[in-house]
Amino acid sequence: MIKVITSKDNQRIKFAASLKENKYRKIHKMYLAETKKSLEMAISAQVVKEVFTLEYLDIPEDIPQYLVSEEVIKKLSSNVNPEGVVFIAEMKEIEVNNPNKILYLEEITDPGNMGTIIRTALAFSYDLVLLSDNCVSIYNEKVINSSKGAIFMMPIKKGKIQDYQKDHKVIVSTLAKDSISLEEVKAPEKFILVLGNESRGVSSEISKLADIKVKILINNIDSLNVSVAGGILMNKIH
Amino acid sequence: MIKVITSKDNQRIKFAASLKENKYRKIHKMYLAETKKSLEMAISAQVVKEVFTLEYLDIPEDIPQYLVSEEVIKKLSSNVNPEGVVFIAEMKEIEVNNPNKILYLEEITDPGNMGTIIRTALAFSYDLVLLSDNCVSIYNEKVINSSKGAIFMMPIKKGKIQDYQKDHKVIVSTLAKDSISLEEVKAPEKFILVLGNESRGVSSEISKLADIKVKILINNIDSLNVSVAGGILMNKIH
Repeated sequence: MIKVITSKDNQRIKFAASLKENKYRKIHKMYLAETKKSLEMAISAQVVKEVFTLEYLDIPEDIPQYLVSEEVIKKLSSNVNPEGVVFIAEMKEIEVNNPNKILYLEEITDPGNMGTIIRTALAFSYDLVLLSDNCVSIYNEKVINSSKGAIFMMPIKKGKIQDYQKDHKVIVSTLAKDSISLEEVKAPEKFILVLGNESRGVSSEISKLADIKVKILINNIDSLNVSVAGGILMNKIH
Repeated sequence: MIKVITSKDNQRIKFAASLKENKYRKIHKMYLAETKKSLEMAISAQVVKEVFTLEYLDIPEDIPQYLVSEEVIKKLSSNVNPEGVVFIAEMKEIEVNNPNKILYLEEITDPGNMGTIIRTALAFSYDLVLLSDNCVSIYNEKVINSSKGAIFMMPIKKGKIQDYQKDHKVIVSTLAKDSISLEEVKAPEKFILVLGNESRGVSSEISKLADIKVKILINNIDSLNVSVAGGILMNKIH
């Protein structure tokens, strides 16, 4: 279905724009995403509800496609220079049975970090991203943007390390003195890798659960950005 | 020297606020930075001109220190939740002779990436960050913030790979088919590691200069974020 909408006061556009707010995302269980590349991945994941685009797109016919003005795209996009494709996706938990490789995120609050970490976890074939309470919402538009479509493919849910600890080794990234160097770590078959909050690192409650404490050897500065540290760890442990 | 300023229309505050614009940063060769941790590093680097703070700070007496209101800090800060310390730093190129380990950045445009990459280069003891034309300004406040103080310690300048190619191996990160896996790379004594633009990667002109082409083995998704890729590469090659 293809329709043309020119007014940014159109009801469909108003509905779409409302999804910029967490409140309405929660009510409708839908969220906004953008770019052609992400749309491709979202179509594969069967979560696309409606597409708003500057130019006709060759996508399955059952997905409503609205040709819109630049003004409308600017209203819906969260980028300064929008690519010209914005779409509504539905929230859908991706099921995973018996995940072997789990990434646990404790209170990651920066949306750019959250999206980048999800993208990296997908790239290193992690089976599940497990979120503590107080992480930023994964449907925040900056998370969606920086995940580069990984959000549509990666199983992600809230949960506790304790639910998996019986048969998974817990690997905590921490600068504690008794941490071993990353070079010495060999990935167990089943494990949970833990990354901590941007300012405070991993809490002492979670550190206590560690079977292996690991650190990246750095100089001159206290710490790495958590997405960078996560990338270095996941590249070795996966 | 300690003074109290309560009005955000004070001349010192107006001058400081003007440094939020690139134009005035260039004219005055100064820029804004914030947080106590960064201030510490900037003091070591001897680049601090003036400090604006909510509470008295124990810093060298020759640095002018202004006790200001929250309103003033909000005006000067680029963070949503400012920590309460903003300062003016002077642009000063950090000299380096015969750098062995050089990171070359080709058209990195996202300020968050730029700052994070500089932080990572410092953490892995790189000697120099070399910038192509069209990189984002390193004095952009988001670059300064995400560098977490690394900006005050890391030698950074604009330049060309060709200036170093005589005795440095050029290592290019690219997904080209003839790239070898990162695991196979051994860091040469003198090298230039190249990271490319966020969307386009490394240009063909620069790729041609490569002595070694390297890729990180990933699945499910086309690419990693450039800061994450940079971190993984620098962790192995340094």
